[in-house]
Amino acid sequence: MELTADAVDRVVAAALAEDVGAGDVTTNAVVPAHARGEAVVVARKALVACGLDVADAVFAAVDPSLRVERLWAEGEAREGDLPLLRVGGSLRAILAAERTALNFLARLCGIATFTRRFVHAVEGTGCVVVDTRKTLPGWRVLDKYATAVGGAQAHRMGLFDAVLVKDNHIEAAGGVAAAVAAVRANAPPHLRVQVEVESAADAEAALAAGAEWLLLDNRSVDELRDLVKRFGDRAVLEASGGVTLESVRAIARTGVHRVSIGALTHSAPGADVALDVARPA
Amino acid sequence: MELTADAVDRVVAAALAEDVGAGDVTTNAVVPAHARGEAVVVARKALVACGLDVADAVFAAVDPSLRVERLWAEGEAREGDLPLLRVGGSLRAILAAERTALNFLARLCGIATFTRRFVHAVEGTGCVVVDTRKTLPGWRVLDKYATAVGGAQAHRMGLFDAVLVKDNHIEAAGGVAAAVAAVRANAPPHLRVQVEVESAADAEAALAAGAEWLLLDNRSVDELRDLVKRFGDRAVLEASGGVTLESVRAIARTGVHRVSIGALTHSAPGADVALDVARPA
Amino acid sequence: MELTADAVDRVVAAALAEDVGAGDVTTNAVVPAHARGEAVVVARKALVACGLDVADAVFAAVDPSLRVERLWAEGEAREGDLPLLRVGGSLRAILAAERTALNFLARLCGIATFTRRFVHAVEGTGCVVVDTRKTLPGWRVLDKYATAVGGAQAHRMGLFDAVLVKDNHIEAAGGVAAAVAAVRANAPPHLRVQVEVESAADAEAALAAGAEWLLLDNRSVDELRDLVKRFGDRAVLEASGGVTLESVRAIARTGVHRVSIGALTHSAPGADVALDVARPA
Amino acid sequence: MELTADAVDRVVAAALAEDVGAGDVTTNAVVPAHARGEAVVVARKALVACGLDVADAVFAAVDPSLRVERLWAEGEAREGDLPLLRVGGSLRAILAAERTALNFLARLCGIATFTRRFVHAVEGTGCVVVDTRKTLPGWRVLDKYATAVGGAQAHRMGLFDAVLVKDNHIEAAGGVAAAVAAVRANAPPHLRVQVEVESAADAEAALAAGAEWLLLDNRSVDELRDLVKRFGDRAVLEASGGVTLESVRAIARTGVHRVSIGALTHSAPGADVALDVARPA
Amino acid sequence: MELTADAVDRVVAAALAEDVGAGDVTTNAVVPAHARGEAVVVARKALVACGLDVADAVFAAVDPSLRVERLWAEGEAREGDLPLLRVGGSLRAILAAERTALNFLARLCGIATFTRRFVHAVEGTGCVVVDTRKTLPGWRVLDKYATAVGGAQAHRMGLFDAVLVKDNHIEAAGGVAAAVAAVRANAPPHLRVQVEVESAADAEAALAAGAEWLLLDNRSVDELRDLVKRFGDRAVLEASGGVTLESVRAIARTGVHRVSIGALTHSAPGADVALDVARPA
Amino acid sequence: MELTADAVDRVVAAALAEDVGAGDVTTNAVVPAHARGEAVVVARKALVACGLDVADAVFAAVDPSLRVERLWAEGEAREGDLPLLRVGGSLRAILAAERTALNFLARLCGIATFTRRFVHAVEGTGCVVVDTRKTLPGWRVLDKYATAVGGAQAHRMGLFDAVLVKDNHIEAAGGVAAAVAAVRANAPPHLRVQVEVESAADAEAALAAGAEWLLLDNRSVDELRDLVKRFGDRAVLEASGGVTLESVRAIARTGVHRVSIGALTHSAPGADVALDVARPA
Repeated sequence: MELTADAVDRVVAAALAEDVGAGDVTTNAVVPAHARGEAVVVARKALVACGLDVADAVFAAVDPSLRVERLWAEGEAREGDLPLLRVGGSLRAILAAERTALNFLARLCGIATFTRRFVHAVEGTGCVVVDTRKTLPGWRVLDKYATAVGGAQAHRMGLFDAVLVKDNHIEAAGGVAAAVAAVRANAPPHLRVQVEVESAADAEAALAAGAEWLLLDNRSVDELRDLVKRFGDRAVLEASGGVTLESVRAIARTGVHRVSIGALTHSAPGADVALDVARPA
Repeated sequence: MELTADAVDRVVAAALAEDVGAGDVTTNAVVPAHARGEAVVVARKALVACGLDVADAVFAAVDPSLRVERLWAEGEAREGDLPLLRVGGSLRAILAAERTALNFLARLCGIATFTRRFVHAVEGTGCVVVDTRKTLPGWRVLDKYATAVGGAQAHRMGLFDAVLVKDNHIEAAGGVAAAVAAVRANAPPHLRVQVEVESAADAEAALAAGAEWLLLDNRSVDELRDLVKRFGDRAVLEASGGVTLESVRAIARTGVHRVSIGALTHSAPGADVALDVARPA
Repeated sequence: MELTADAVDRVVAAALAEDVGAGDVTTNAVVPAHARGEAVVVARKALVACGLDVADAVFAAVDPSLRVERLWAEGEAREGDLPLLRVGGSLRAILAAERTALNFLARLCGIATFTRRFVHAVEGTGCVVVDTRKTLPGWRVLDKYATAVGGAQAHRMGLFDAVLVKDNHIEAAGGVAAAVAAVRANAPPHLRVQVEVESAADAEAALAAGAEWLLLDNRSVDELRDLVKRFGDRAVLEASGGVTLESVRAIARTGVHRVSIGALTHSAPGADVALDVARPA
Repeated sequence: MELTADAVDRVVAAALAEDVGAGDVTTNAVVPAHARGEAVVVARKALVACGLDVADAVFAAVDPSLRVERLWAEGEAREGDLPLLRVGGSLRAILAAERTALNFLARLCGIATFTRRFVHAVEGTGCVVVDTRKTLPGWRVLDKYATAVGGAQAHRMGLFDAVLVKDNHIEAAGGVAAAVAAVRANAPPHLRVQVEVESAADAEAALAAGAEWLLLDNRSVDELRDLVKRFGDRAVLEASGGVTLESVRAIARTGVHRVSIGALTHSAPGADVALDVARPA
Repeated sequence: MELTADAVDRVVAAALAEDVGAGDVTTNAVVPAHARGEAVVVARKALVACGLDVADAVFAAVDPSLRVERLWAEGEAREGDLPLLRVGGSLRAILAAERTALNFLARLCGIATFTRRFVHAVEGTGCVVVDTRKTLPGWRVLDKYATAVGGAQAHRMGLFDAVLVKDNHIEAAGGVAAAVAAVRANAPPHLRVQVEVESAADAEAALAAGAEWLLLDNRSVDELRDLVKRFGDRAVLEASGGVTLESVRAIARTGVHRVSIGALTHSAPGADVALDVARPA
Repeated sequence: MELTADAVDRVVAAALAEDVGAGDVTTNAVVPAHARGEAVVVARKALVACGLDVADAVFAAVDPSLRVERLWAEGEAREGDLPLLRVGGSLRAILAAERTALNFLARLCGIATFTRRFVHAVEGTGCVVVDTRKTLPGWRVLDKYATAVGGAQAHRMGLFDAVLVKDNHIEAAGGVAAAVAAVRANAPPHLRVQVEVESAADAEAALAAGAEWLLLDNRSVDELRDLVKRFGDRAVLEASGGVTLESVRAIARTGVHRVSIGALTHSAPGADVALDVARPA
């Protein structure tokens, strides 16, 4: 997952347009045009740094002469109450950029931090944490970039770059075997065949029909353990469905290869970040 | 707050581009082009309906011949496990649109639902719930639309349409009085003057200098009660800072006129919505 | 009012696309690719310099290696027949950029110059000159930037950032008092309440209902003087309606606080600017 | 000159974005969502109707269900104080669209009306009125559409679709003959060769070198008469330079074939148009 | 491969902008605005119809009231000198749309027709014809749509939706085994592993390392036959490299599963299509 | 014909979006982020270099720190198997940019090379090779840039910048004389009048009515010779219609002034270019 400079610039421009628009009326009224200042973006609580390029781009878009210094590396985790970035230059520009930069960091660090907690929770099990398509509309690339920084593996980007046969497809095809056969006949052959199954019988049918990957949605830990025993060496097994920080380790310990977690992007708490202007000495 | 058709269409097109892209490879392989189907979007838990126009626009953008029927009104609150929308037509189109429609509804209903809980929590106190600029970049209008559906009052859209003197401005101006004076001299006069104050002395200075609105950030309930007593009839008083569902009623009961809550948009849990294809009878 | 580099670049790119398009066929036929030249943009008549950044951006967009030197400061007023800018480099690029740069300067200097004349006309009266929404579609920010350079105060940017109750609203609400009451109940409270009134009785009703700002449209000087006497210390009073250079001083001397003038943007004569290529010595 | 629906839609969307933005706060506060109304756009002074399609598009973009009825034909001239358009439907939509529709009509009708006066002034002389590239950046097509509605002939759209050798080109080439020769050798041959000349000698040289069209810039009426006598049957002769309503007829009577007038677009007074909401009976 | 209405509209708008621009000066001068006409788009030589939706969109974009009737189905092959489409309505609109519609059809029918010849050439061999990424920049989706209409199978859309290890990757990794191992460890696991190999030894190493698909680039028919014998039941085998209509059948008969052909898109001759206006009876 | 940096950047961004999208999954899996490399773009067969700026822009868009060195000049023709460009820097970036850069060069060099062959074929005849509007939709400027690099003269850019009366116009006007008369009366007078004629009688009528340019479509060499004799000194004569490398010299030797060739853009074979990564020494 990459954030191209072009993509970042576009999303930053849109964000500044909606927040700053025709100008920051308060700052322009109070702060002289020539005033210089220095500020730090502070992580108030422990977090995983994510989106430093985006924050940079926000400051640069408001005023290319602002100097931004990174105090953490992208992906680095540290305790709270530490400065993350230092920015200096036009005080008007710093204040105009503040909220937009913080809003980006809050979500990106938030997702990376939340993901990292899941990754730590499964440590040592061999199970891989993966994200889903439950991202915010317009934020697919940014959201998945943040899960990657957090340590998750990327699932498909969208409907176009992976085959995943779900319940509705099986329903439409008249059964697992027919659905898998249709996919093998018609889908781009460079994509593996993933199938969502609800029972061992379905799993058997899916594998017999050529599936290489089983998505086990909303199965209990016991069911998962049983499915791993039967199919774990014949296909990639991926658990999913309402996985939480509380439940993830037990799931991972069943032996499934992967666990996909919508909450990484749809329920990550925003990171607590703030900008403090330093008092001129 | 309005969602213009044009704005909705643009955000929907971007969302479909990132999820569907060059086509839904699975559905196109499994579901025949002529297959028709019917599906319901279900609210799995109690929620406030929000974004029905957006969901409509998603289905229409994928296939204008899909028929969408709304079973709830926008802003209506109901219990869970009830169908929210019914959609019929090309099965391929329904499945291609599914995740994008759900991702929009999850956030919009989520914010509206979360906001409504705050509004209920302050019921009878006379205090008004308002949102903030802590929205997702690119989602300012959508996020604020959802808080409005939830029952909150809109705060400023951005830096351009309201005056709000905050700590950094006061610092830069060399004091509350100087900052307020600068605003009265230089800011667009059709905007009221709001000032963030940290003490009764500051409040006094701000009002003396012409402020009409005091933002009381991170004050205790006792402090708020005291400030209301002294200034409640001389200015609009607005509390803010880390307000939660647990704390909001006590704050509202201090007599402040408004309470602004960043969590409405930065921490609303996604609503639990799903799409079920009906089995053809 | 600010012109962001991004906004300027977009409008400049559009302007060059419509004038230069696939290339300047005459210049490319006559002037060798390697020819260098120097030119001055001349103010043929007295004017207020406005839009120097935009002119810069035009030359830079055609050829980033052109050197542009400013001979006046933005907002500076000087007599005619003086050079405003000096530009040197590729002669082809200078000639291709010429008309577009001049067309921008003609309007922007034209508005700033015309506005400055109104500002001078009211000098000493304490009355402030303000602009209106009668700007050219697509040029709102540029037009208002130019009135600001000329010395006017910005009125609202659009319908979204100020409350102004006009005759049609009063009609719809069934009277001034009802209209003002509706605004106080429903409009964003960080915006002051402005009301257009046609009589002293209406003014009285508006103030009683909570209006803070009265727009006095198309009132005679005598009426204005009378209204100032009665309401001048209870609200901001703003005169408007067909104000000209001839009439503005008398209006200002009535004691109104502001006079808003559509002509600043809808009727400013274009400034007389030209580009002269210097003869190589 | 044509206004394509696509081009009109784009310029209208941009104009509404800058005026209405996130919503008309006053109207939404005062006028109920269900209120219906009827309004007329009135020409307060005599004018030539121009831009009725654009006005239509503005109302349709705000609310596709508004009904717009045209009372004049495009290009029709009538006396003042007559209704031009009638629009009915959602009162909120009518009021939100009002200023944008009027701003378009003011410029388009303004240019068409001003142009028509020049066309009438030369009536019977056989001389044709033509426009120039002194249009507003971003408005080239709209401005030239309006001069065409007024009765002028279109000059080149931009630097790409006509050859016009001007003083700077002649300077660069080292003389008229060399410049014309360069054009004949290098420019697209489907374009005629126009040359700006300052004397009879230059005109002679230009024609000898193959020019077919002479632009006579800032010549006196006597000079023009003389040039017509010498060259009028050997080339198209076009007068230009500071032409006004006062001077145009004398210029036209010299026998020049065309007169090009920058003022048509850079100095046309805005037309006086207003929108009146009809009192419900 | 799907052509969404939105994508088609965008590409059509761009194409009309570059061909029609500010208007068809010839047609507007010669053909009266009210003239009606009927025309047929004729296939002068045998072809496979492709892009009828695009042609429709061109006519509709110029004038939504044009009636277009399709005389062939999309993908249908017929002999030459037959009408493909009939279009009726405004004669000006038909003539303005002509070249743009024909330019689209020439390429799309051209690719579909050329592809169909390859598909016929391998008929009965069981070998599948696939396209490549050698498409025209900006035309990826359109080009691949046309190969699909011709009967080819789509290869990856781009670098993002398939894994294909080529010589440069092997070079960078220090050998086939290392490259395949890197891919299995780091690439999205829902994508199969394709590897380009140059020898049986490399093929062996690739399969041992976990490759599932071998791209055999520029191998002779004898080599291919040999590779099929050794690896045909252990992996998908795909031949590529300078495949022509002359050579394709021999390649297909070696037993390779697929043959990928860059010429489908980089060298398909344009189809010979023309528009004839019918003489009014 | 010019390629502005802005136009190149837009087309390059679109091309990279469709090929690289969210990232090159293979390269990112195999090649370490820090790996450096050097590569050459090789012309495998003789060609005319065209589009070096575009290729530069592709590499720069993927990674601005790549160093690109040009080994040929734009427009230079050389034998095959020679390096055209050398590029060094991040190996990931080189590989991600490879196909897009090659796809641009294949078409642009292909058209320039094919055009140059036609230009050589008519050498010494005095006849000029010109291109047509049979370009790829979206590629008008790029395609015409390439024919210019090849040595052709540009025909009109589109329907807006030249008058060309064709059979359908003549049909609509009721004859050649009427069509030419309409054009002289109504079309922009800075454009010459070109007419397509099918016989000497039509040619005579066209010239009598004021045409200055005759397009002789699909005439035999004998007919052309005869038409040259009769009309060659009264108008520009341009032959067209199915011109090939085999037929072009005979056509040119008839004495026509120009020959326009659709095949330059609709049938130019793609140039054979490849990128080879150099083995690190």
